[in-house]
Amino acid sequence: MGTESRLVRWICWLTVITAFFMTGFLIGWFARPTSTDTSNDEDSSRSMRDFLDEMRAENIREHLRKFTRLPHLAGTKQNLRLAEEIKEEWLEYGLDSVEMVPYDVLLSYPNTTQPNYISIVDHLGNQVFNTSLAEPVPEGYENISDIVPPYNAFSAQGQPVGDLVYVNYGRTEDFSQLEREMKINVTGKIVIVRYGKIFRGNKVKNAAFHGASGVVMFSDPADYCATGVQPYPDGWNLPGGGAQRGNVLNLNGAGDPLTPGYPAKEYTFRYRLEEGVGLPKIPVHPIGYHDAIHLLKKVRMNIQTNNQVTRIHNVIGRVRGAVEPDRYVILGGHRDAWVFGGIDPVSGAAVVHEIVRSTGRLLRRGWRPRRTIVFASWDAEEFGLLGSTEWAEENAKVLQDRAVVYINADSAIEGMYTLRVDCTPSLHTLVYKVTKQVSSPEVGEEGMSLYESWHKRDNWTDDRDAPRISKLGSGSDFEAYFIRLGIAAGRARYTKDKKTERYSSYPVYHSVYETFEVVDRFYDPSFQRLRAVAQVRGGLIFQLADSQLLPLDASQYADSLTKYAHSIAQLGQKHQDALITYGVSFDSLFSAVENFTTAASSFHERLKTLDRTDPLQVRMANDQLMYLERAFVDPLGLPGRPFYRHVIFAPSIHNKYAGESFPGIYDALFDIEHAANPRRAWEEVRRQISIATFTVHAAAMTLTPPA
Amino acid sequence: MGTESRLVRWICWLTVITAFFMTGFLIGWFARPTSTDTSNDEDSSRSMRDFLDEMRAENIREHLRKFTRLPHLAGTKQNLRLAEEIKEEWLEYGLDSVEMVPYDVLLSYPNTTQPNYISIVDHLGNQVFNTSLAEPVPEGYENISDIVPPYNAFSAQGQPVGDLVYVNYGRTEDFSQLEREMKINVTGKIVIVRYGKIFRGNKVKNAAFHGASGVVMFSDPADYCATGVQPYPDGWNLPGGGAQRGNVLNLNGAGDPLTPGYPAKEYTFRYRLEEGVGLPKIPVHPIGYHDAIHLLKKVRMNIQTNNQVTRIHNVIGRVRGAVEPDRYVILGGHRDAWVFGGIDPVSGAAVVHEIVRSTGRLLRRGWRPRRTIVFASWDAEEFGLLGSTEWAEENAKVLQDRAVVYINADSAIEGMYTLRVDCTPSLHTLVYKVTKQVSSPEVGEEGMSLYESWHKRDNWTDDRDAPRISKLGSGSDFEAYFIRLGIAAGRARYTKDKKTERYSSYPVYHSVYETFEVVDRFYDPSFQRLRAVAQVRGGLIFQLADSQLLPLDASQYADSLTKYAHSIAQLGQKHQDALITYGVSFDSLFSAVENFTTAASSFHERLKTLDRTDPLQVRMANDQLMYLERAFVDPLGLPGRPFYRHVIFAPSIHNKYAGESFPGIYDALFDIEHAANPRRAWEEVRRQISIATFTVHAAAMTLTPPA
Repeated sequence: MGTESRLVRWICWLTVITAFFMTGFLIGWFARPTSTDTSNDEDSSRSMRDFLDEMRAENIREHLRKFTRLPHLAGTKQNLRLAEEIKEEWLEYGLDSVEMVPYDVLLSYPNTTQPNYISIVDHLGNQVFNTSLAEPVPEGYENISDIVPPYNAFSAQGQPVGDLVYVNYGRTEDFSQLEREMKINVTGKIVIVRYGKIFRGNKVKNAAFHGASGVVMFSDPADYCATGVQPYPDGWNLPGGGAQRGNVLNLNGAGDPLTPGYPAKEYTFRYRLEEGVGLPKIPVHPIGYHDAIHLLKKVRMNIQTNNQVTRIHNVIGRVRGAVEPDRYVILGGHRDAWVFGGIDPVSGAAVVHEIVRSTGRLLRRGWRPRRTIVFASWDAEEFGLLGSTEWAEENAKVLQDRAVVYINADSAIEGMYTLRVDCTPSLHTLVYKVTKQVSSPEVGEEGMSLYESWHKRDNWTDDRDAPRISKLGSGSDFEAYFIRLGIAAGRARYTKDKKTERYSSYPVYHSVYETFEVVDRFYDPSFQRLRAVAQVRGGLIFQLADSQLLPLDASQYADSLTKYAHSIAQLGQKHQDALITYGVSFDSLFSAVENFTTAASSFHERLKTLDRTDPLQVRMANDQLMYLERAFVDPLGLPGRPFYRHVIFAPSIHNKYAGESFPGIYDALFDIEHAANPRRAWEEVRRQISIATFTVHAAAMTLTPPA
Repeated sequence: MGTESRLVRWICWLTVITAFFMTGFLIGWFARPTSTDTSNDEDSSRSMRDFLDEMRAENIREHLRKFTRLPHLAGTKQNLRLAEEIKEEWLEYGLDSVEMVPYDVLLSYPNTTQPNYISIVDHLGNQVFNTSLAEPVPEGYENISDIVPPYNAFSAQGQPVGDLVYVNYGRTEDFSQLEREMKINVTGKIVIVRYGKIFRGNKVKNAAFHGASGVVMFSDPADYCATGVQPYPDGWNLPGGGAQRGNVLNLNGAGDPLTPGYPAKEYTFRYRLEEGVGLPKIPVHPIGYHDAIHLLKKVRMNIQTNNQVTRIHNVIGRVRGAVEPDRYVILGGHRDAWVFGGIDPVSGAAVVHEIVRSTGRLLRRGWRPRRTIVFASWDAEEFGLLGSTEWAEENAKVLQDRAVVYINADSAIEGMYTLRVDCTPSLHTLVYKVTKQVSSPEVGEEGMSLYESWHKRDNWTDDRDAPRISKLGSGSDFEAYFIRLGIAAGRARYTKDKKTERYSSYPVYHSVYETFEVVDRFYDPSFQRLRAVAQVRGGLIFQLADSQLLPLDASQYADSLTKYAHSIAQLGQKHQDALITYGVSFDSLFSAVENFTTAASSFHERLKTLDRTDPLQVRMANDQLMYLERAFVDPLGLPGRPFYRHVIFAPSIHNKYAGESFPGIYDALFDIEHAANPRRAWEEVRRQISIATFTVHAAAMTLTPPA
């Protein structure tokens, strides 16, 4: 072989080897993932399916059965035992950690030796009739002790005697009508008010404001019995001997009345009882309709209820996020019940329990969510959202930095008709997406999605061709997270047909008849409805915890803001002359909302071209989505309500349960035609429009490119 | 060749090729960076050197010369023109964007037709002596118009007549001494107070609180003349005809008095003048010492100053961050001056200008910081930090989410001795590091670092063997960023020798004699001191913007908290009996500080093993560092001061310039021996200790592992 041919051969060799080396190098180069962000949406949606399928109706039934055997009022041994049980089971299910978090908060209990009751007194002052001291105990629960009798927690003590005045529902408009039209003054009178329409604390506030010396609450069959339904145990209506418990605070988001703004820890300064936030100054007591029909003319109230600082316990479970452990997706609901809590809250707590179990199953199979999931079993919700609010206060800074969303899990069922969802606008899109992945629980709707079933029953016709979603009000544990801290929030449950079923909440609400059986026999015998609710709540937290890009929709927020701006402006237009006289205009607000709309749509446009292999790009976009809700919070709070800080949503001052949009403007406009100083009143409207305008502009800024 | 040997040959071939392919693959695999986080600390420190070296003394001189030719009072055409000039030059230097940001805020000017002055009136009411209407104009500036005469901005209008009472510096303790010891009542009197020791607004507040009908401020040579120094222009002392301008507001962080809490935009609601925040209700006027010596017994004030809503302009320049554009490092200082602003603020603004120029040079050479840098030229600082506060209000939500640090750049020099730094504790370590990289500007200290020069002159002996660093008070534009929003902040300037130079601030402060020449001839003829300050301010923002891990030190915060806790507890210990009687203890605070100390040291321990190639790990750790300062903010604010929200640091209520640590507790303890209701007063102490305890615990939580 000549030198030349050897050279050629060597060159060939080298070329081939180099080619293989280079091929190897290039394959190696491109094969290596360039990002530690290994999120895979396909894997995630397969896990989501497994997660939803893992939830079982029969398990939810078992959890409900187990958690409703005994009363578990906040602050009692039994409720602590239940907390310990939940902690143990969450650990067994496979959560990374579960802790008990105690606080010492002001609770209120009836005096065990001097019962509360209302008497009819004759002209000699003799008690000729007394209301019953307890509800007839339902079958199967005869040997249960520690059933707290009906009472209104945080009632003042006292024995006021006086003429009884019926004030209907005790709403702002009821008292206006009494005073302005009927010229009836309730000063020094005991008022009797029927439950329903608004939060009972608002009734008491109104009564006290108008000078009443006491309040008797009663459940009117018109409000607490559905037509054609038998009283419990033959049906799910409220028996005549049943009465609704419930607190009568006006906390406005303060949490523990003695430690407003701060967690009720051992080191925390406590105000004196007489300085406590939201405590009524007059006695209040609830009765059933059998007792109510006896009450005439003149009565004496005998109220011995005591306030006392009591230890409560939240249970907090965690699943550490694999990629972003410092982003929290929270599913929280309360555990404490007035008695057995068959519906409120255990139908919800049982659902959470099943979600935790299903999460644990997935973890065991090697799955781990991108973000941290926090499960919470709150205590003392019934005493003013105390457990959830104290935890929000203690963790405020960390939550401010890290919380993505709070999903609430109170009662999962209050009717047998369809789904009900209240949530922040940025969750609308996700709610629709998730409900399309859940099956309808209704008999005869096999193969139909929950979305379709819900859409058919409750079309949001005036807004869009899709199922109705409502604003969040208050009255459950999402309040501190959403209204004070500005964390995106939502809740879902099964509900009644609002168009035909006119009773308030559900008939046995807060009575001793809220048992396991009322759910098992009437509301959801197959437990398919509760399963569907579990899948909705679980599906929401799954998607929020595991999607690479947060499934929050700023454009939906823009749509809602537009709607709210029109609606508040319309309210203003009722006073055309005044608007001109006092130079009030909604133009700046509309312009801010337009600005927000543009910012939101550009933001989502940019998301489409986001480099999803770049972990920092993804994180930055997610931070903008996460902090959007935060941008609506004003640290100065709403007028006179320092802990209600959300400028877009707040509980109505007339009814805590109802959510008001642009509450600052709404409140400034309310009854403005009767304002003592119209110039000042309209100035306040201008001021509130200016604050709303600023806030919407500021929120839009958070959606623009960061630099 | 047999089949066998051919086979062997093929196998050899295959092996070799596979080996090369695999080698290629592996090299390719490992050669590829797995992270988009390509930060390189070595490159960064080389760029830092270039950045510092690029700053030139002669340029700073030129900037100072250019920016001090004409008066540029806030709200005037000339100050707008200066803003436009700065904007143009920042763009030329190479910033990515520069914008003008206007607000319409309440300013205050003397009436141009009815001048302000003080008269001595005889018993017939005749004016027998009037104070001068203006300062003698310094040489070289004789033809300059628009020199605003000495006045106290936001003074009330009026012509009060009355006996004159000398109240020394007008401090809390001066008025106490007058009333308690000397039994002198100033009600209805005009008080004459000497400038110095405390912020003039505090003097006016004290005078008004004690019933004075007017305040005359004067500059005492004891406070405004250094010994052995000639009056300007022969030296840098205040001439007898010079007087100190300055606002007399008590804003407590509110910004524009008519739009507290919100940016002063066109849509913003404005309170009426009589409702404005912090406006004095009595006339106030400043005079020089030549006039002061004439004033005896009975005087009349003639004050015609007007408040008017006026447009102001901030200039905001940006350099987009390469890796984390949504993290902001802010360098801000004001532009508006009472007259020429030779020292205040242009010595600072010239330094910022040179930093911007140097930044632009680096950008042109291909460098780009990891994070976004924001440069700000604020307007109307002299009228109550208005420009900076309005911008903080408008951008509050975005800053809350994204601001890493705010470095202030007011006057860069107030003495000829050494460096002075006030900053948040987490910046201590970085300040030492940066000053070690800057050369001493002092003659005879060639080769010595600024750190060494500073250490030698101002050793923090009682704290540590290192140069002294002080707490931030207020009185400049960092206030809204640090005290309201909880953004880590600091400031640096050249200062006098506090141990030997006892005059207040610097003699020509806020007089017409603050010229280019006072710096060029006396304070820094070589401009090396200003260059050193430029390198410190610039070095801080460089490191904060470009380091992969944020150079913030939580353990330094722990040290400072420990020190502050001991010092406040010591103040409490003066009342041993009361502590026992009222059950007040500092134990919970000490325990919280210990908890914080442990959390901080564990955090920094974990940082050592952080995977710095994982961009999300780095981001999460940086977020914890960034949000640490935020954790000290309480949205409820300090008692009566809703815009002072930092629980660890606030301006003293007795002197805005001074920083108080644990201000809530401090204020509750102040003068407690004279409390009308000691039980209530001590309850407030307990409440404040509880808030501080909670806040320190909450801050510690932000440093623990996120899940």
